[in-house]
Amino acid sequence: MSDPGPEPVSLLIQGAWVLTMNPQHEAFSPGAVALQGEKIVAVGHPEDLRARYAPAQVLDYPQGLILPGLINAHTHAAMALFRGLADDLPLEEWLNDYIFPAESRVNGEFVYWGTKLAVAEMLLSGTTTFADMYLFAGDVARAVADTGIRAVVGEVLYDFPSPNYGPPEAGLKFSAELCRTYQDHPLIRVAIQPHAVYTCSPDLLQECGELAARYDTRLIIHLSETPKEVADCQARYGATPVGHLYRLGLLNRRLLADHAVVLSAADRMLFTASGAGVAHCPESNMKLASGIAPVADLLRRGIPVGLGTDGCASNNNLDLLQEMDTAAKLQKVHTMDPTVLPAPTALKMATTGGAQVLGLADEVGALVPGLKGDLIVIDLDQPHLTPLYDPYSHLVYAATGADVQTVLVHGRVVVQDRQILAFDLEETLARARELAKGLLAKKVGNLKSRLV
Amino acid sequence: MSDPGPEPVSLLIQGAWVLTMNPQHEAFSPGAVALQGEKIVAVGHPEDLRARYAPAQVLDYPQGLILPGLINAHTHAAMALFRGLADDLPLEEWLNDYIFPAESRVNGEFVYWGTKLAVAEMLLSGTTTFADMYLFAGDVARAVADTGIRAVVGEVLYDFPSPNYGPPEAGLKFSAELCRTYQDHPLIRVAIQPHAVYTCSPDLLQECGELAARYDTRLIIHLSETPKEVADCQARYGATPVGHLYRLGLLNRRLLADHAVVLSAADRMLFTASGAGVAHCPESNMKLASGIAPVADLLRRGIPVGLGTDGCASNNNLDLLQEMDTAAKLQKVHTMDPTVLPAPTALKMATTGGAQVLGLADEVGALVPGLKGDLIVIDLDQPHLTPLYDPYSHLVYAATGADVQTVLVHGRVVVQDRQILAFDLEETLARARELAKGLLAKKVGNLKSRLV
Repeated sequence: MSDPGPEPVSLLIQGAWVLTMNPQHEAFSPGAVALQGEKIVAVGHPEDLRARYAPAQVLDYPQGLILPGLINAHTHAAMALFRGLADDLPLEEWLNDYIFPAESRVNGEFVYWGTKLAVAEMLLSGTTTFADMYLFAGDVARAVADTGIRAVVGEVLYDFPSPNYGPPEAGLKFSAELCRTYQDHPLIRVAIQPHAVYTCSPDLLQECGELAARYDTRLIIHLSETPKEVADCQARYGATPVGHLYRLGLLNRRLLADHAVVLSAADRMLFTASGAGVAHCPESNMKLASGIAPVADLLRRGIPVGLGTDGCASNNNLDLLQEMDTAAKLQKVHTMDPTVLPAPTALKMATTGGAQVLGLADEVGALVPGLKGDLIVIDLDQPHLTPLYDPYSHLVYAATGADVQTVLVHGRVVVQDRQILAFDLEETLARARELAKGLLAKKVGNLKSRLV
Repeated sequence: MSDPGPEPVSLLIQGAWVLTMNPQHEAFSPGAVALQGEKIVAVGHPEDLRARYAPAQVLDYPQGLILPGLINAHTHAAMALFRGLADDLPLEEWLNDYIFPAESRVNGEFVYWGTKLAVAEMLLSGTTTFADMYLFAGDVARAVADTGIRAVVGEVLYDFPSPNYGPPEAGLKFSAELCRTYQDHPLIRVAIQPHAVYTCSPDLLQECGELAARYDTRLIIHLSETPKEVADCQARYGATPVGHLYRLGLLNRRLLADHAVVLSAADRMLFTASGAGVAHCPESNMKLASGIAPVADLLRRGIPVGLGTDGCASNNNLDLLQEMDTAAKLQKVHTMDPTVLPAPTALKMATTGGAQVLGLADEVGALVPGLKGDLIVIDLDQPHLTPLYDPYSHLVYAATGADVQTVLVHGRVVVQDRQILAFDLEETLARARELAKGLLAKKVGNLKSRLV
């Protein structure tokens, strides 16, 4: 039999390093990834891959570090339009005087353009998948489809009327419809997203759980974010928020708990046994003074943990490279132990950890043959990344999202050399400025009051 | 009398915003700064300044935010060559197995190129002044002079022989000589820098204090960085490190205490009365699990506080924009109060606060006529800075050093549109890679041991 020759593939991308984030944390230097359509075909040394494959396109980054696209496990993307509107305020004043009035202006167009603005920032800082919770989730999904990023979207549900779907009982119907609409979309998953135990009745939570089971998807909820939430839940239901969900039969593999800051010993045991996941959002928890999530302990217990930025109003950016840095350092000082949450663990939270808590582990999170071609390239040819002893260290402790050079989602080049190819950035920025104009005029007048 | 016409100036720089950081925190939108040679002549609305001045050169940033150059109040610049060499280790192992062996390779050339590497990173992230403590301070000063940044330099002094000046007694002589060499340099100040209370005898500390007084300069020391340092000092001298310096007559306006993490109530009272300053380094304190400095309390007491990154081995970057973000958020969660350390206060630490603790308040830190032309331009035309409601918020919570577009030091354009004009970056990166090669080869082999 004759040699069949090299196998045709659509793309070969090579760099100074490839970090696979596979279970062995294999790394190649130099390294390459071969893709056919949306799928990863092979990962290894460039010479080996060039011998085995005939790529239609080659992307060569001699000073590039290639790794899986980052996964933002919790955000409210459209709140990018509220970034910097109000900061450094007591929680009640922040919500009642700024965020809620601003959100009263929200409609589908606002959410669509706000989400596109956030997607621009996310792609340019290396995020290829995000989990979103917001109003007008259909418009979030539309923005995702139009930009080429990957997302888990979901309409936020609660006991009061919504500017999107109207009366509370319509929320479940809206969510079910969204599940059906996107059930075959390559980039979009829909999750059921009750807001929190203090805004959703036990009945609503259980109906959400049933809906998530029916559509075999995630149930995502803000949980145990603040001491006040826990105290109020104890007073109202005689249980912690975690205990409350447990009693309702909702603490299981399907559950993703956003924040999980305030956890009793019993909460942690219940979590460990349940298979439920956590989206850790350290910068938001710091900025709102919610507390420090016991993430090192959760990881020690084997609880799946992803990393999230939360929305831009409480961070105020969507840069997961900075979030990894803060997550690692915050746990060290919190436990007074410099060895906890080492750099590779922080990167794991932002890649495979995120995929696991979102139910996407068989699709993304690692550079492994068969998974989708979601990957990013970091430009190492910069003073703050020179010299290089340890790529994990540089990624977590020295790099920022601005070091991301090129981004692939689903095998498609969506950012190349820091230019967004997938959609019109200028149009998005112009629409964002337009939508913000009313609020902007108001704030500039107040600027002088921002004294120390 | 005839109208003398507009006054000639060397440069007019204008942008969408100018934040002056003067005592009233005046801001102009749009705004402009006029410079003549190394000095700021006027700050105000572009129309007013264009009417009053005839500039030889105009720099126009219609989407630029102009503010004072940032001041890094504590670093060890040449340690940029050790970035990522070792992380996530217990302090003793980190020092004894990695940092000390690596530092045994240090010589003047290593320090010169390591400092230039750090200066490249600092300029590109908006730092125009840094306070350095390291070996071979003469070579640090040489790198500063060759790059055009501003710095306070000083040879680290302790009770054991130095690879630079030899026997301990030669350190003071070396420092005095350095003071004399640079007494008229426009960009360089020399400080006297004993390492710490656990590495310097009371006699050495007092001699350092006398030298600082003789040359009318700062006395800079690592102070109260860790609980262990405080416990050891108590056991050895029957006083906290702050109390120990007080007894030695060294706690005064001349003193700059780096870190100041572990402070008793008595320490804080002594500090308040003394006029001494603090260099706050939150990211290093987090990464090494040293603790959280009570900065909100220090500021409330009127103690002058600057912001530092510490060296790259414990951060691992020199980006003061990120450091402001972390400083603000860490105090909020530490005090469980979202209102402490608001954005303008964080920016104040990194500008006028740094100038004050380094004794440079009559030269830099604010955009005020008569001060030196040290300023930076942030490029606002980016997704993560769009829309803009509050420039202080964007600077502290959303921007990073990568958003710095143009940098002036002493009235000279040293970075323009992210290109370093003042020295050869490629040569610096090449020399850095060369110097790191031996260590690099060793580390790559160990990479697979970096599993989660």
